[in-house]
Amino acid sequence: MPKKDQPVSLPVLRRLPRYYRLLEKLESEGVERISSIEIAKQLGLTASQIRQDLNCFGGFGQQGYGYGVSPLCKEIGNILHLNENLTAVLIGVGNLGRALCGYLSGEAKGITLIGLFDKNPNAAQTASGLPIMNVDKLDDFCKERHPRVAILCIPGENAQQTAEKLVNLGIEGFWNFSHTDLRLPDNILVEDVHLGDSLMTLGYRVWDSDASENNRNGGAEK
Amino acid sequence: MPKKDQPVSLPVLRRLPRYYRLLEKLESEGVERISSIEIAKQLGLTASQIRQDLNCFGGFGQQGYGYGVSPLCKEIGNILHLNENLTAVLIGVGNLGRALCGYLSGEAKGITLIGLFDKNPNAAQTASGLPIMNVDKLDDFCKERHPRVAILCIPGENAQQTAEKLVNLGIEGFWNFSHTDLRLPDNILVEDVHLGDSLMTLGYRVWDSDASENNRNGGAEK
Repeated sequence: MPKKDQPVSLPVLRRLPRYYRLLEKLESEGVERISSIEIAKQLGLTASQIRQDLNCFGGFGQQGYGYGVSPLCKEIGNILHLNENLTAVLIGVGNLGRALCGYLSGEAKGITLIGLFDKNPNAAQTASGLPIMNVDKLDDFCKERHPRVAILCIPGENAQQTAEKLVNLGIEGFWNFSHTDLRLPDNILVEDVHLGDSLMTLGYRVWDSDASENNRNGGAEK
Repeated sequence: MPKKDQPVSLPVLRRLPRYYRLLEKLESEGVERISSIEIAKQLGLTASQIRQDLNCFGGFGQQGYGYGVSPLCKEIGNILHLNENLTAVLIGVGNLGRALCGYLSGEAKGITLIGLFDKNPNAAQTASGLPIMNVDKLDDFCKERHPRVAILCIPGENAQQTAEKLVNLGIEGFWNFSHTDLRLPDNILVEDVHLGDSLMTLGYRVWDSDASENNRNGGAEK
Protein backbone atom coordinates (compact mmCIF):
# COMPACT_ATOMS: atom_id res chain seq x y z
CA MET A 1 0.00 0.00 0.00
CA PRO A 2 1.35 3.46 -0.84
CA LYS A 3 2.36 5.65 2.07
CA LYS A 4 0.12 8.48 0.98
CA ASP A 5 0.78 10.75 3.93
CA GLN A 6 4.50 11.12 3.30
CA PRO A 7 5.54 14.17 1.34
CA VAL A 8 7.26 13.42 -1.96
CA SER A 9 10.51 15.30 -2.58
CA LEU A 10 10.61 17.47 -5.69
CA PRO A 11 13.28 15.38 -7.50
CA VAL A 12 11.21 12.21 -6.95
CA LEU A 13 8.07 14.05 -7.98
CA ARG A 14 9.70 15.21 -11.22
CA ARG A 15 10.48 11.60 -12.14
CA LEU A 16 6.92 10.34 -11.52
CA PRO A 17 5.48 11.74 -14.79
CA ARG A 18 8.32 10.02 -16.68
CA TYR A 19 7.43 6.70 -15.07
CA TYR A 20 3.78 7.33 -15.84
CA ARG A 21 4.49 8.13 -19.51
CA LEU A 22 6.59 4.99 -19.95
CA LEU A 23 4.08 2.73 -18.18
CA GLU A 24 1.18 4.13 -20.19
CA LYS A 25 3.09 3.40 -23.41
CA LEU A 26 3.96 -0.13 -22.25
CA GLU A 27 0.35 -0.74 -21.24
CA SER A 28 -0.87 0.34 -24.68
CA GLU A 29 1.63 -2.10 -26.19
CA GLY A 30 0.19 -4.94 -24.08
CA VAL A 31 3.27 -5.34 -21.82
CA GLU A 32 2.16 -6.88 -18.51
CA ARG A 33 5.20 -6.56 -16.31
CA ILE A 34 8.55 -4.84 -16.21
CA SER A 35 11.67 -5.01 -14.02
CA SER A 36 13.28 -1.99 -12.39
CA ILE A 37 16.34 -2.74 -14.56
CA GLU A 38 14.29 -2.40 -17.73
CA ILE A 39 12.59 0.81 -16.51
CA ALA A 40 16.05 2.17 -15.69
CA LYS A 41 17.36 1.31 -19.14
CA GLN A 42 14.46 2.98 -20.90
CA LEU A 43 14.69 6.17 -18.84
CA GLY A 44 18.45 6.48 -18.42
CA LEU A 45 18.25 6.10 -14.62
CA THR A 46 19.59 3.42 -12.28
CA ALA A 47 17.50 0.45 -11.14
CA SER A 48 18.21 1.21 -7.48
CA GLN A 49 16.97 4.79 -7.94
CA ILE A 50 13.75 3.48 -9.42
CA ARG A 51 13.22 0.98 -6.59
CA GLN A 52 13.94 3.75 -4.08
CA ASP A 53 11.50 6.17 -5.77
CA LEU A 54 8.69 3.65 -5.97
CA ASN A 55 9.33 2.65 -2.35
CA CYS A 56 8.37 6.21 -1.36
CA PHE A 57 4.82 5.12 -2.08
CA GLY A 58 5.11 1.72 -0.46
CA GLY A 59 6.55 -0.07 -3.52
CA PHE A 60 4.54 -2.20 -5.88
CA GLY A 61 7.15 -4.68 -7.06
CA GLN A 62 7.84 -8.32 -6.20
CA GLN A 63 11.37 -9.65 -6.26
CA GLY A 64 11.94 -11.81 -9.33
CA TYR A 65 8.63 -10.76 -10.85
CA GLY A 66 9.10 -7.04 -11.36
CA TYR A 67 6.27 -4.54 -11.47
CA GLY A 68 2.82 -5.12 -12.89
CA VAL A 69 2.56 -2.45 -15.61
CA SER A 70 -1.19 -1.74 -15.31
CA PRO A 71 -1.40 -1.58 -11.49
CA LEU A 72 1.74 0.56 -11.24
CA CYS A 73 0.52 2.91 -13.98
CA LYS A 74 -2.83 3.24 -12.24
CA GLU A 75 -1.23 3.85 -8.86
CA ILE A 76 1.15 6.54 -10.15
CA GLY A 77 -1.81 8.12 -11.95
CA ASN A 78 -3.64 8.20 -8.60
CA ILE A 79 -0.64 9.71 -6.82
CA LEU A 80 -0.48 12.41 -9.50
CA HIS A 81 -4.26 12.98 -9.11
CA LEU A 82 -4.78 12.39 -12.83
CA ASN A 83 -8.30 11.09 -12.21
CA GLU A 84 -9.31 14.22 -10.39
CA ASN A 85 -10.28 17.46 -11.97
CA LEU A 86 -8.30 20.64 -11.58
CA THR A 87 -10.04 23.61 -13.17
CA ALA A 88 -7.93 26.05 -15.17
CA VAL A 89 -8.11 29.31 -17.07
CA LEU A 90 -5.70 30.22 -19.87
CA ILE A 91 -4.67 33.83 -20.44
CA GLY A 92 -3.25 34.80 -23.83
CA VAL A 93 -4.70 32.83 -26.75
CA GLY A 94 -1.95 33.27 -29.36
CA ASN A 95 -0.28 30.38 -31.18
CA LEU A 96 1.22 29.01 -27.97
CA GLY A 97 -2.08 29.41 -26.09
CA ARG A 98 -3.88 27.56 -28.89
CA ALA A 99 -1.29 24.79 -28.88
CA LEU A 100 -1.84 24.36 -25.13
CA CYS A 101 -5.65 24.41 -25.58
CA GLY A 102 -5.27 21.53 -28.04
CA TYR A 103 -3.08 19.61 -25.65
CA LEU A 104 -5.31 20.27 -22.63
CA SER A 105 -8.50 19.24 -24.37
CA GLY A 106 -6.79 16.21 -25.89
CA GLU A 107 -4.28 14.01 -24.18
CA ALA A 108 -3.73 15.92 -20.90
CA LYS A 109 -5.27 14.31 -17.83
CA GLY A 110 -6.41 15.70 -14.49
CA ILE A 111 -7.04 19.25 -15.69
CA THR A 112 -10.04 20.92 -17.31
CA LEU A 113 -9.86 24.21 -19.12
CA ILE A 114 -12.95 26.22 -18.18
CA GLY A 115 -12.11 29.71 -19.47
CA LEU A 116 -9.96 31.39 -22.14
CA PHE A 117 -9.01 35.04 -21.98
CA ASP A 118 -7.21 37.44 -24.28
CA LYS A 119 -6.58 41.18 -24.39
CA ASN A 120 -7.99 41.45 -27.90
CA PRO A 121 -10.40 38.59 -28.40
CA ASN A 122 -12.02 38.25 -31.76
CA ALA A 123 -15.74 38.03 -30.92
CA ALA A 124 -16.34 35.01 -33.14
CA GLN A 125 -13.24 33.08 -32.14
CA THR A 126 -13.15 29.97 -29.99
CA ALA A 127 -10.46 27.47 -29.09
CA SER A 128 -11.11 23.89 -28.03
CA GLY A 129 -14.83 24.70 -28.11
CA LEU A 130 -14.58 27.51 -25.55
CA PRO A 131 -15.28 31.17 -26.31
CA ILE A 132 -12.33 33.55 -25.92
CA MET A 133 -13.30 36.27 -23.45
CA ASN A 134 -11.87 39.71 -22.86
CA VAL A 135 -9.47 39.78 -19.89
CA ASP A 136 -11.70 42.41 -18.23
CA LYS A 137 -14.18 39.56 -17.63
CA LEU A 138 -11.63 37.67 -15.54
CA ASP A 139 -12.81 39.04 -12.17
CA ASP A 140 -16.43 38.06 -12.63
CA PHE A 141 -15.50 34.70 -14.12
CA CYS A 142 -13.21 33.72 -11.24
CA LYS A 143 -15.70 34.84 -8.60
CA GLU A 144 -18.36 32.68 -10.22
CA ARG A 145 -16.41 29.61 -11.36
CA HIS A 146 -13.43 29.47 -8.92
CA PRO A 147 -10.71 28.12 -11.24
CA ARG A 148 -7.70 26.81 -9.29
CA VAL A 149 -4.93 27.05 -11.89
CA ALA A 150 -4.00 29.79 -14.36
CA ILE A 151 -1.96 29.20 -17.51
CA LEU A 152 -0.07 32.35 -18.46
CA CYS A 153 0.83 32.76 -22.15
CA ILE A 154 1.17 36.54 -22.07
CA PRO A 155 4.24 38.76 -22.58
CA GLY A 156 6.66 38.96 -19.67
CA GLU A 157 5.98 42.63 -18.96
CA ASN A 158 2.30 42.00 -18.08
CA ALA A 159 2.76 38.71 -16.31
CA GLN A 160 3.59 39.85 -12.75
CA GLN A 161 0.61 42.21 -12.52
CA THR A 162 -1.79 39.67 -14.01
CA ALA A 163 -0.50 36.93 -11.70
CA GLU A 164 -0.96 39.10 -8.60
CA LYS A 165 -4.51 39.86 -9.66
CA LEU A 166 -5.20 36.16 -10.21
CA VAL A 167 -3.83 35.29 -6.76
CA ASN A 168 -6.31 37.76 -5.27
CA LEU A 169 -9.02 36.00 -7.27
CA GLY A 170 -8.16 32.66 -5.63
CA ILE A 171 -5.76 31.05 -8.13
CA GLU A 172 -3.56 28.50 -6.30
CA GLY A 173 -1.09 27.52 -9.02
CA PHE A 174 0.40 28.90 -12.22
CA TRP A 175 1.67 27.18 -15.33
CA ASN A 176 3.88 30.05 -16.44
CA PHE A 177 4.96 30.41 -20.07
CA SER A 178 5.64 34.14 -19.76
CA HIS A 179 9.30 34.99 -20.02
CA THR A 180 9.64 36.25 -16.48
CA ASP A 181 10.17 34.94 -12.96
CA LEU A 182 6.99 35.60 -10.98
CA ARG A 183 7.33 36.89 -7.42
CA LEU A 184 4.29 35.56 -5.55
CA PRO A 185 3.42 34.52 -1.97
CA ASP A 186 5.06 31.28 -0.80
CA ASN A 187 1.83 29.30 -0.75
CA ILE A 188 1.27 29.91 -4.48
CA LEU A 189 2.71 27.18 -6.70
CA VAL A 190 4.45 28.11 -9.91
CA GLU A 191 5.59 25.72 -12.60
CA ASP A 192 7.70 27.67 -15.08
CA VAL A 193 8.21 26.70 -18.68
CA HIS A 194 10.88 29.16 -19.75
CA LEU A 195 11.32 28.24 -23.40
CA GLY A 196 14.04 30.85 -23.89
CA ASP A 197 16.10 29.48 -21.00
CA SER A 198 15.83 25.96 -22.34
CA LEU A 199 16.89 27.11 -25.82
CA MET A 200 19.86 29.11 -24.50
CA THR A 201 20.97 26.06 -22.52
CA LEU A 202 20.81 23.89 -25.63
CA GLY A 203 22.76 26.47 -27.64
CA TYR A 204 25.50 26.65 -25.03
CA ARG A 205 25.79 22.88 -24.88
CA VAL A 206 26.02 22.50 -28.67
CA TRP A 207 28.78 25.16 -28.95
CA ASP A 208 30.54 23.79 -25.89
CA SER A 209 30.55 20.23 -27.21
CA ASP A 210 31.96 21.63 -30.45
CA ALA A 211 34.76 23.34 -28.53
CA SER A 212 35.52 20.19 -26.51
CA GLU A 213 35.72 18.19 -29.70
CA ASN A 214 38.12 20.74 -31.19
CA ASN A 215 40.22 20.50 -28.02
CA ARG A 216 40.29 16.71 -28.24
CA ASN A 217 41.41 17.04 -31.85
CA GLY A 218 44.30 19.25 -30.71
CA GLY A 219 42.45 22.40 -31.77
CA ALA A 220 42.24 21.29 -35.40
CA GLU A 221 39.39 22.64 -37.49
CA LYS A 222 36.49 20.26 -37.76
CA MET B 1 38.56 38.07 -17.64
CA PRO B 2 36.29 35.05 -17.90
CA LYS B 3 37.91 31.66 -17.59
CA LYS B 4 36.53 30.47 -20.88
CA ASP B 5 38.23 27.11 -20.95
CA GLN B 6 36.63 25.82 -17.77
CA PRO B 7 33.55 23.69 -18.26
CA VAL B 8 30.38 25.10 -16.70
CA SER B 9 28.39 22.65 -14.60
CA LEU B 10 24.80 22.04 -15.69
CA PRO B 11 23.19 23.65 -12.59
CA VAL B 12 25.27 26.82 -13.12
CA LEU B 13 24.50 26.76 -16.83
CA ARG B 14 20.76 26.53 -16.13
CA ARG B 15 20.96 29.70 -14.03
CA LEU B 16 22.82 31.73 -16.70
CA PRO B 17 19.74 32.36 -18.90
CA ARG B 18 17.91 33.63 -15.82
CA TYR B 19 20.72 36.11 -15.11
CA TYR B 20 20.70 37.11 -18.76
CA ARG B 21 16.94 37.68 -18.80
CA LEU B 22 17.07 39.82 -15.64
CA LEU B 23 20.07 41.85 -16.84
CA GLU B 24 18.50 42.47 -20.24
CA LYS B 25 15.35 43.76 -18.51
CA LEU B 26 17.38 45.99 -16.17
CA GLU B 27 19.41 47.31 -19.11
CA SER B 28 16.24 48.22 -20.99
CA GLU B 29 15.06 50.06 -17.87
CA GLY B 30 18.30 52.07 -17.80
CA VAL B 31 19.70 50.46 -14.63
CA GLU B 32 23.51 50.78 -14.68
CA ARG B 33 24.66 48.60 -11.82
CA ILE B 34 23.30 45.96 -9.48
CA SER B 35 24.56 44.15 -6.38
CA SER B 36 24.63 40.39 -5.98
CA ILE B 37 22.14 40.88 -3.10
CA GLU B 38 19.67 42.58 -5.41
CA ILE B 39 20.12 39.94 -8.16
CA ALA B 40 19.56 37.28 -5.48
CA LYS B 41 16.38 38.98 -4.28
CA GLN B 42 14.94 39.26 -7.77
CA LEU B 43 15.67 35.64 -8.67
CA GLY B 44 15.01 33.94 -5.34
CA LEU B 45 18.63 32.77 -5.00
CA THR B 46 21.33 33.63 -2.45
CA ALA B 47 23.89 36.40 -3.02
CA SER B 48 26.77 34.01 -2.35
CA GLN B 49 25.45 31.58 -4.96
CA ILE B 50 25.37 34.39 -7.50
CA ARG B 51 28.91 35.53 -6.68
CA GLN B 52 30.07 31.91 -6.92
CA ASP B 53 28.32 31.37 -10.28
CA LEU B 54 29.71 34.54 -11.83
CA ASN B 55 33.17 33.68 -10.49
CA CYS B 56 33.09 30.58 -12.70
CA PHE B 57 33.70 33.00 -15.55
CA GLY B 58 36.25 35.11 -13.74
CA GLY B 59 33.72 37.40 -12.00
CA PHE B 60 32.78 40.87 -13.21
CA GLY B 61 31.92 42.57 -9.94
CA GLN B 62 33.75 45.05 -7.74
CA GLN B 63 33.27 45.01 -3.99
CA GLY B 64 31.10 47.91 -2.88
CA TYR B 65 30.15 48.75 -6.46
CA GLY B 66 28.32 45.66 -7.61
CA TYR B 67 28.08 44.55 -11.22
CA GLY B 68 27.87 46.78 -14.25
CA VAL B 69 24.55 45.73 -15.84
CA SER B 70 25.52 46.25 -19.50
CA PRO B 71 28.98 44.62 -19.39
CA LEU B 72 27.68 41.65 -17.39
CA CYS B 73 24.71 41.20 -19.72
CA LYS B 74 27.02 41.34 -22.73
CA GLU B 75 29.47 38.88 -21.19
CA ILE B 76 26.78 36.35 -20.24
CA GLY B 77 25.37 36.74 -23.77
CA ASN B 78 28.84 35.91 -25.13
CA ILE B 79 29.19 32.90 -22.84
CA LEU B 80 25.80 31.67 -24.06
CA HIS B 81 26.90 32.28 -27.68
CA LEU B 82 23.86 34.48 -28.29
CA ASN B 83 25.73 36.51 -30.90
CA GLU B 84 26.58 33.46 -32.93
CA ASN B 85 24.30 31.66 -35.27
CA LEU B 86 23.10 28.14 -34.71
CA THR B 87 21.09 26.86 -37.66
CA ALA B 88 17.92 24.90 -36.94
CA VAL B 89 15.14 22.96 -38.61
CA LEU B 90 11.69 22.52 -37.09
CA ILE B 91 9.70 19.35 -37.68
CA GLY B 92 5.93 19.43 -37.11
CA VAL B 93 4.30 22.77 -37.90
CA GLY B 94 1.10 22.54 -35.86
CA ASN B 95 0.01 25.18 -33.34
CA LEU B 96 3.00 24.54 -31.10
CA GLY B 97 5.40 24.53 -34.06
CA ARG B 98 3.93 27.85 -35.23
CA ALA B 99 4.24 29.33 -31.77
CA LEU B 100 7.92 28.36 -31.71
CA CYS B 101 8.45 29.77 -35.23
CA GLY B 102 7.08 33.08 -33.97
CA TYR B 103 9.36 33.02 -30.96
CA LEU B 104 12.44 31.97 -32.93
CA SER B 105 12.02 34.62 -35.61
CA GLY B 106 11.23 37.24 -32.96
CA GLU B 107 12.90 37.56 -29.60
CA ALA B 108 15.09 34.42 -29.57
CA LYS B 109 18.81 35.04 -30.01
CA GLY B 110 21.64 32.89 -31.29
CA ILE B 111 19.51 30.58 -33.40
CA THR B 112 18.23 30.82 -36.96
CA LEU B 113 15.44 28.71 -38.32
CA ILE B 114 16.37 27.67 -41.86
CA GLY B 115 13.83 24.95 -42.64
CA LEU B 116 10.30 23.89 -41.65
CA PHE B 117 8.97 20.41 -42.25
CA ASP B 118 5.63 18.69 -41.82
CA LYS B 119 4.09 15.35 -42.75
CA ASN B 120 1.17 17.01 -44.51
CA PRO B 121 2.29 20.47 -45.59
CA ASN B 122 -0.25 22.66 -47.27
CA ALA B 123 1.53 23.73 -50.46
CA ALA B 124 0.70 27.39 -50.01
CA GLN B 125 1.48 27.60 -46.30
CA THR B 126 4.42 29.35 -44.75
CA ALA B 127 5.42 30.21 -41.19
CA SER B 128 7.76 33.04 -40.24
CA GLY B 129 8.36 33.64 -43.93
CA LEU B 130 9.64 30.12 -44.60
CA PRO B 131 7.90 27.56 -46.78
CA ILE B 132 6.72 24.38 -45.06
CA MET B 133 8.29 21.40 -46.80
CA ASN B 134 7.30 17.75 -46.84
CA VAL B 135 9.39 15.66 -44.40
CA ASP B 136 10.55 13.53 -47.32
CA LYS B 137 12.68 16.54 -48.37
CA LEU B 138 14.58 16.42 -45.06
CA ASP B 139 17.46 14.27 -46.36
CA ASP B 140 18.28 16.52 -49.30
CA PHE B 141 17.84 19.65 -47.24
CA CYS B 142 20.21 18.55 -44.46
CA LYS B 143 22.84 17.36 -46.92
CA GLU B 144 22.79 20.75 -48.63
CA ARG B 145 22.30 23.16 -45.72
CA HIS B 146 23.80 21.29 -42.70
CA PRO B 147 21.47 22.47 -39.92
CA ARG B 148 22.94 21.78 -36.47
CA VAL B 149 19.81 21.70 -34.31
CA ALA B 150 16.41 20.07 -34.80
CA ILE B 151 13.25 21.17 -33.03
CA LEU B 152 10.84 18.26 -32.70
CA CYS B 153 7.14 19.10 -32.42
CA ILE B 154 5.86 15.75 -33.64
CA PRO B 155 3.87 13.05 -31.82
CA GLY B 156 5.86 10.88 -29.41
CA GLU B 157 5.40 7.70 -31.43
CA ASN B 158 7.33 9.10 -34.44
CA ALA B 159 9.95 11.03 -32.51
CA GLN B 160 12.57 8.32 -31.88
CA GLN B 161 12.74 7.22 -35.51
CA THR B 162 12.84 10.80 -36.80
CA ALA B 163 15.54 11.74 -34.28
CA GLU B 164 17.73 8.79 -35.29
CA LYS B 165 17.39 9.77 -38.92
CA LEU B 166 18.34 13.37 -38.09
CA VAL B 167 21.41 12.23 -36.14
CA ASN B 168 22.54 10.37 -39.26
CA LEU B 169 22.00 13.59 -41.19
CA GLY B 170 24.40 15.46 -38.90
CA ILE B 171 22.09 17.05 -36.30
CA GLU B 172 24.05 17.74 -33.08
CA GLY B 173 21.30 18.85 -30.72
CA PHE B 174 17.54 18.47 -30.25
CA TRP B 175 14.98 20.79 -28.70
CA ASN B 176 12.47 18.06 -27.99
CA PHE B 177 8.77 18.88 -27.49
CA SER B 178 7.64 15.35 -28.38
CA HIS B 179 6.20 13.49 -25.43
CA THR B 180 8.89 10.88 -25.29
CA ASP B 181 12.40 10.37 -23.94
CA LEU B 182 14.77 10.06 -26.88
CA ARG B 183 17.48 7.40 -26.76
CA LEU B 184 20.39 8.78 -28.77
CA PRO B 185 24.20 8.49 -28.79
CA ASP B 186 25.95 10.21 -25.86
CA ASN B 187 27.47 12.98 -27.99
CA ILE B 188 24.02 14.17 -29.12
CA LEU B 189 22.57 16.91 -26.90
CA VAL B 190 18.90 16.84 -26.02
CA GLU B 191 16.99 19.59 -24.27
CA ASP B 192 13.55 18.24 -23.41
CA VAL B 193 10.49 20.37 -22.90
CA HIS B 194 8.02 17.81 -21.61
CA LEU B 195 4.89 19.92 -21.19
CA GLY B 196 2.90 16.99 -19.84
CA ASP B 197 5.45 16.28 -17.12
CA SER B 198 5.49 19.90 -16.05
CA LEU B 199 1.68 19.99 -15.91
CA MET B 200 1.47 16.74 -13.91
CA THR B 201 4.01 18.15 -11.46
CA LEU B 202 1.95 21.31 -11.01
CA GLY B 203 -1.22 19.29 -10.51
CA TYR B 204 0.40 17.13 -7.84
CA ARG B 205 1.73 20.18 -6.02
CA VAL B 206 -1.64 21.96 -6.02
CA TRP B 207 -3.47 18.90 -4.65
CA ASP B 208 -0.68 18.22 -2.18
CA SER B 209 -0.69 21.77 -0.84
CA ASP B 210 -4.44 21.42 -0.47
CA ALA B 211 -3.97 18.24 1.58
CA SER B 212 -1.27 19.84 3.75
CA GLU B 213 -3.57 22.77 4.45
CA ASN B 214 -6.36 20.42 5.46
CA ASN B 215 -3.93 18.61 7.75
CA ARG B 216 -2.88 21.89 9.35
CA ASN B 217 -6.55 22.70 9.90
CA GLY B 218 -7.02 19.37 11.71
CA GLY B 219 -8.50 17.76 8.61
CA ALA B 220 -11.42 20.19 8.49
CA GLU B 221 -13.02 20.89 5.12
CA LYS B 222 -11.72 24.05 3.49
